Amino acid sequence: MQFSVTILGSNSALPTSERFPTAQVLNASERFFLIDCGEGTQLQLRRNKIRFNRINHIFISHLHGDHCFGLIGLISTFSLLGRKPDLHIYGHEDLQRVMQPQIDYFCREISFKVVFHSIEPSKSDVIYEDEKISVETIPMKHRIPTCGFLFREKPRKKHVIRDMLDFYQVPLKSIPLIKNGEDFITSEGEVVPNEKLTKPAAPPRSYAFCSDTAYNEKIIDQIRGVDLMYHEATFLDEKESLAKSTFHSTARQAGLLALKAEVKKLIIGHFSTRYFDLDPFQQQAQSVFPNTQLAKEGRIFEIPYIPNL
Amino acid sequence: MQFSVTILGSNSALPTSERFPTAQVLNASERFFLIDCGEGTQLQLRRNKIRFNRINHIFISHLHGDHCFGLIGLISTFSLLGRKPDLHIYGHEDLQRVMQPQIDYFCREISFKVVFHSIEPSKSDVIYEDEKISVETIPMKHRIPTCGFLFREKPRKKHVIRDMLDFYQVPLKSIPLIKNGEDFITSEGEVVPNEKLTKPAAPPRSYAFCSDTAYNEKIIDQIRGVDLMYHEATFLDEKESLAKSTFHSTARQAGLLALKAEVKKLIIGHFSTRYFDLDPFQQQAQSVFPNTQLAKEGRIFEIPYIPNL
Repeated sequence: MQFSVTILGSNSALPTSERFPTAQVLNASERFFLIDCGEGTQLQLRRNKIRFNRINHIFISHLHGDHCFGLIGLISTFSLLGRKPDLHIYGHEDLQRVMQPQIDYFCREISFKVVFHSIEPSKSDVIYEDEKISVETIPMKHRIPTCGFLFREKPRKKHVIRDMLDFYQVPLKSIPLIKNGEDFITSEGEVVPNEKLTKPAAPPRSYAFCSDTAYNEKIIDQIRGVDLMYHEATFLDEKESLAKSTFHSTARQAGLLALKAEVKKLIIGHFSTRYFDLDPFQQQAQSVFPNTQLAKEGRIFEIPYIPNL
Repeated sequence: MQFSVTILGSNSALPTSERFPTAQVLNASERFFLIDCGEGTQLQLRRNKIRFNRINHIFISHLHGDHCFGLIGLISTFSLLGRKPDLHIYGHEDLQRVMQPQIDYFCREISFKVVFHSIEPSKSDVIYEDEKISVETIPMKHRIPTCGFLFREKPRKKHVIRDMLDFYQVPLKSIPLIKNGEDFITSEGEVVPNEKLTKPAAPPRSYAFCSDTAYNEKIIDQIRGVDLMYHEATFLDEKESLAKSTFHSTARQAGLLALKAEVKKLIIGHFSTRYFDLDPFQQQAQSVFPNTQLAKEGRIFEIPYIPNL
């Protein structure tokens, strides 16, 4: 029942000697969704002991190199390791156009299929869905078409209370209906309300990944109340005008958006290479939104599973 | 008068959590020649404090990803930093074909010119030359067209002995001729042999980079007596048949080639990811050629400048 984000790269375009370009992994119940794939992502996956064969879906926010230059190396390594399952990559329609020739050239005997899914970053769409999770795009405001990604667990079925089922002699075939919220009618015709037989399931968890973007209140409605939000904070407040002109955000702006969107926790990252000491980022964001943490390579942010007992 | 090789990446195709794919830098009197450029090379350049603007020439041995996937990130970073001088890249003719579309897409406002120099890996050619150094290709024996690179300093002019010039009252205009090896004739007609007026210059230094390749004695004549040779050693001896079938070498074979070519020092690298402990590589190579060292990230192999005093 894990739901956690591992930071593989925290930096903006120019890597430093210690900070990698953007890449993260969302672990949703041991299924791993890779989000962006800067140069060195495969190395960072190894360092963080994330098994390659758990990754079947990769989401690319936009086609700046610091968010996708690690793709070809990762695909090539997957192939050298003899991977079999399809690999699904979600990104702007140009992604396939720039990647396919590289794959064709460098991975001539590729052992698996790379399936590109073209997304339209300017609108919010559900681009992935399975029985446990959905992924929506979040339109970002950047120099080129860019989107964030909103991962939401699906609502779980209710938990039945075993003792009450026994007491009312509920037959097995009725249990799925009760889990779905229906009342139970005994053989004597007594209506037992669902609330007597069940406990609510743990609330679905959610993660919003927002990078790269200028400060943009238009996304607030979509991400309102998420458990965890990553928001880029390329600059400190002193560079607000530079942030604006390059379509990036400051640490304080990230905090402000977190506050207005009533998210529960904020991670900031995508730090400009000009900064060595990152503590001021945390301070400036926390001055607006106290529950802020810095994205740093290897950090894991977990959203606990809290059943309503 | 530096002549040293810095190892940026020591591993073969699949990077480990600590070992990077192939990349090296030859520092020849503070001019830096980048040799191969696996993923993460720009990060390793930063870690090893090699200034980006010193790199004007990049040599790519062959078009397997672990030798060139770092190129696009490096070029992109150079451009973001506003580089101006041309960047010269030497490689198989296909290199431009696969790189140019990436450069065109990801570096739209590139600030400098990337000049591709097509090389024919199957024969030995001088592909670069200036007043101090020359670079020749060394044909390798690999699954795809591959060459090594032989870097040779040009012979230096002789050192004049100041006291002897004074003694014979040699005029300034004659000094360049004496440095070139000519005798001096005094005003009285006495012939002073050049050996009395000069000391020999330090011998030119040389570095042979040999990767990837099966064991191949055909290159011995070309590399005979070099000061330093890097030779790939993907496998230990126990995997000699695997080395043969994949067109790679074992540690012992690298040592044997060093011995037969009478090189002065051997570095081995391009280790298969299957090996964690690299000491057996050194032992097996040293059993044939004692002056062998392991390529490890961050190691610097210097060939000292030894003037003949």
